[in-house]
Amino acid sequence: MRQFAPVILFSSLLLCLLSLATAQSKVEQWDRFEVTLKHAYSGNCFKDVHLSTTFSGKDTSFVVAGFYDGKNIFRIRFMPQQIGTWTYTTSSNIPELDKKQGTFECIKATGKNHGMVNVSNTYNFKYGDGKQYYPFGTTAYAWIHMKEGVQELTLNTLKNSGFNKVRMCVLPKNYALVKQEPDIYPFPTKEVRQEPRGKETKMWDFDQFNPDFFQHLEKRIDDLSKLGIEADVIIFHPYDKGRWGFDSMPMEVNIRYVKYLTARLSSFRNVWWSIANEWDLVKTKTHDDWDLLSKAVVESDPYRHLCSIHGSTAKYYEYWKPEFTHISIQDEAPLENFGGAAILRNAYFKPIIYDEVGYEGNLPQRWGRYSGEQMLYLVWMGVIAGTYVTHGETYMFKDERDTIFWADGVALRGTSWQRIAFLRRIVEECPNPLQLADISRDHRTSTAGKGYYLVYFGKEVIDSWPFSLPGKNAGYERPKPGTRFNVEIIDTWNMTIQTYPLTFETAPENDYRVFDKDFRRVMLPLRPYVALRITEAIN
Amino acid sequence: MRQFAPVILFSSLLLCLLSLATAQSKVEQWDRFEVTLKHAYSGNCFKDVHLSTTFSGKDTSFVVAGFYDGKNIFRIRFMPQQIGTWTYTTSSNIPELDKKQGTFECIKATGKNHGMVNVSNTYNFKYGDGKQYYPFGTTAYAWIHMKEGVQELTLNTLKNSGFNKVRMCVLPKNYALVKQEPDIYPFPTKEVRQEPRGKETKMWDFDQFNPDFFQHLEKRIDDLSKLGIEADVIIFHPYDKGRWGFDSMPMEVNIRYVKYLTARLSSFRNVWWSIANEWDLVKTKTHDDWDLLSKAVVESDPYRHLCSIHGSTAKYYEYWKPEFTHISIQDEAPLENFGGAAILRNAYFKPIIYDEVGYEGNLPQRWGRYSGEQMLYLVWMGVIAGTYVTHGETYMFKDERDTIFWADGVALRGTSWQRIAFLRRIVEECPNPLQLADISRDHRTSTAGKGYYLVYFGKEVIDSWPFSLPGKNAGYERPKPGTRFNVEIIDTWNMTIQTYPLTFETAPENDYRVFDKDFRRVMLPLRPYVALRITEAIN
Repeated sequence: MRQFAPVILFSSLLLCLLSLATAQSKVEQWDRFEVTLKHAYSGNCFKDVHLSTTFSGKDTSFVVAGFYDGKNIFRIRFMPQQIGTWTYTTSSNIPELDKKQGTFECIKATGKNHGMVNVSNTYNFKYGDGKQYYPFGTTAYAWIHMKEGVQELTLNTLKNSGFNKVRMCVLPKNYALVKQEPDIYPFPTKEVRQEPRGKETKMWDFDQFNPDFFQHLEKRIDDLSKLGIEADVIIFHPYDKGRWGFDSMPMEVNIRYVKYLTARLSSFRNVWWSIANEWDLVKTKTHDDWDLLSKAVVESDPYRHLCSIHGSTAKYYEYWKPEFTHISIQDEAPLENFGGAAILRNAYFKPIIYDEVGYEGNLPQRWGRYSGEQMLYLVWMGVIAGTYVTHGETYMFKDERDTIFWADGVALRGTSWQRIAFLRRIVEECPNPLQLADISRDHRTSTAGKGYYLVYFGKEVIDSWPFSLPGKNAGYERPKPGTRFNVEIIDTWNMTIQTYPLTFETAPENDYRVFDKDFRRVMLPLRPYVALRITEAIN
Repeated sequence: MRQFAPVILFSSLLLCLLSLATAQSKVEQWDRFEVTLKHAYSGNCFKDVHLSTTFSGKDTSFVVAGFYDGKNIFRIRFMPQQIGTWTYTTSSNIPELDKKQGTFECIKATGKNHGMVNVSNTYNFKYGDGKQYYPFGTTAYAWIHMKEGVQELTLNTLKNSGFNKVRMCVLPKNYALVKQEPDIYPFPTKEVRQEPRGKETKMWDFDQFNPDFFQHLEKRIDDLSKLGIEADVIIFHPYDKGRWGFDSMPMEVNIRYVKYLTARLSSFRNVWWSIANEWDLVKTKTHDDWDLLSKAVVESDPYRHLCSIHGSTAKYYEYWKPEFTHISIQDEAPLENFGGAAILRNAYFKPIIYDEVGYEGNLPQRWGRYSGEQMLYLVWMGVIAGTYVTHGETYMFKDERDTIFWADGVALRGTSWQRIAFLRRIVEECPNPLQLADISRDHRTSTAGKGYYLVYFGKEVIDSWPFSLPGKNAGYERPKPGTRFNVEIIDTWNMTIQTYPLTFETAPENDYRVFDKDFRRVMLPLRPYVALRITEAIN
């Protein structure tokens, strides 16, 4: 019954290595190393076969779960986090899969491979190689469940969008606005029941998985990776309502699904875990179930990918629990007026992502009919307060062929996405992540370090602004008297940055503020959504 | 050496009861039952004597610590939480204090005794008897460390103020604005060191306590209780700076102090524990120390009084920890604009008290120079969002005899306190605690149940308001079409409530809002700080 590939059995000396079917000899740091084992097991390969592998590097080791990928193929995937030689040994209840050993070399990452994104400095994110990562995400819940050609269009749109994170569901979505039937499903069909009026109901074989479905998901996550986009993978959601029943599987199946998914996907460096979208709307799961599922995900993920859980409007989870690396919350309230966004930073001591704040679009529902201006405003309101805000677009036209990006993908029809890309460039030019310079009292002035500020005026239309910085500068050095500052006027909507002709010079701090020594002003265009970039003049 | 009072030894049958010095035979529910034992112990009565008592009621029992009160008197205090017969037995390492038994009858509370305040319905508070308690507090950190006559003036001021909570420190306060030397100290003096230039430094005997100091504290807490005022007792604070050294006692002494304080005060029904004021500014204690001290307080308090910890501006603690019953936070940011205040409710699932948001006063410091209007505005902003806000007053005049209420007490000089009392009456008239009716989208409309709303316009000055309620009404019944509503215009500053001459009648819900069927408006006075009370018309 052994069906190892013909590369094996060159020499008895190399036996332990060669008992493996295929594996790379070199792999980049944070890339994927994969061991493939062929074996025709006569039982249920998903349930009965236990396969894990210990990977040992210089001073660390990981135990990684393998999985069955169909067609007699078992795989073990590993993302090396350290350069150098790694050795590994499999462990299985099936002798043919047990004690397979090997070694490979992990080499330095190249090109656009910056590694896995982690929390950095309490409120922010960095890639594994230390490069700062600022999430500018969008939402395309069901894009991988559309027709293949549609998916390619979506990828092309994303490529040119400036977004670097996409919230997307593993399981297909059934919603008033999203009715597309997927081509493939995560489970094989056991039986198709003919219901009255010609309706068909698929009965799933929950004892198995459909590897084709997951291979497709993986291909799409890799496609995103090539575009430098993080995949915020939503594991459960409530948008099923009896159509497929994936929202109401037994807990035993949920756990098996989590373990299968994490065994397959943990080695993908651009994966984030979103345990659920709108967890509280899934009526078939209790709060304890969510705790259990969150723990199951984290315990099955050897690399500790970013992980959160997302509720319906203003429905917060206990985000302080150790499973959650950051806060992924649906709540527009903190962004609607100044003073709200930073509160959650103070409360949680974790990065805050407002992952659903309503969408730019033209739906009758209030959550789906923001103007581009309002969508952009909410993103800026979050960013200047040291938090992050996810974009989404819900334009529906009469034309039946039209799609709605928020669910289906395809094309962005709105006006905010380009401006968010423009904001992303501004943020990435900052020397450090933004945060309010004088928390509690100045909600418009964001600091990115010594002598580097963004001031955002939001919807306010003012003709001029007296040059004035807070004396306090978060944890950074306060502005000293006699410091010269350049000012640029940013029109966040028209995407222009205009250097102001005057250089300002700071007077000594006066009543918590630092003014220009001659109390000079910056004349502003009489438009909303204006910001200033204020940077210390060099020389 | 036995010195029991002469009431003992009537009969051998009653021996166990009569071995007690004094104790009441009847006590009201939530009142204080006290056992007094006399014994001349030759060692250190504070450190060497262990004394506890088990109180057993119908179906519950409590273990309560006793304490040494000086002059050979040991006391055990108990607050019965159940009506009926209670029996008790002492336990001590000193035979003369051990196995003393007794019984007493707990009777129904009378008059203004509503019991101890507890958390109710996640975000609010109730007295033990079920009466709703809405905290409208003020701050008088060091009032009990002033001269006796000054303290009486403070009590008289509080009596007529409308406040029902006072934040107050156990330990004396040394601050630029508060230099008063107390008459008594929590520890006896071991030695007075003469320093250069005539300065004296008291060296404390940390192995003992000064019962006089604590008796005085207790008297003042009881004085507040008689006025229906909760004492938010601040156990530690940073305002010492080497003057007495109470902020930098060894942890062993801190713990002994906590245990002594809780043994003495836990039976006072109006006590709340504030582990610290501005904990993060106490440089001699680590975060772990605060965790330890918080646990020590809660473990030593058999009744689980309300307990929180308070930091400097926007410095939040891990308020989700089980020691903390509510959030007591210094942060004005959430109250400065609409949309901020309710966020912490969503995040913590506990009652939120903004216990320091700056003060009404005339200090040069920005935290101490709010107008009365701003102080009142911040309180309203919290209250309509279902949270609570503490008042404080920092008026300093040139006159040396003048005091500053925030620290010393005496007299309220400001303008907000009467308006806060006015607000308190409005809140207490509500059928239920307030909360935003349509969270995330309408930050001005607060609901107190079916057909009962407050709408607050804050600083906005508008001539009229189209009658409009959110379709959503928190968890309560939504407004139905054809419902008639009365409107009252509340001038929160001038303290007037004016019935509007029209009765409005609701149209069917239209795009998330419920308007008057004829789209009629409420004409408003062109003044800031206006609110509306909207109640279903009965007929």
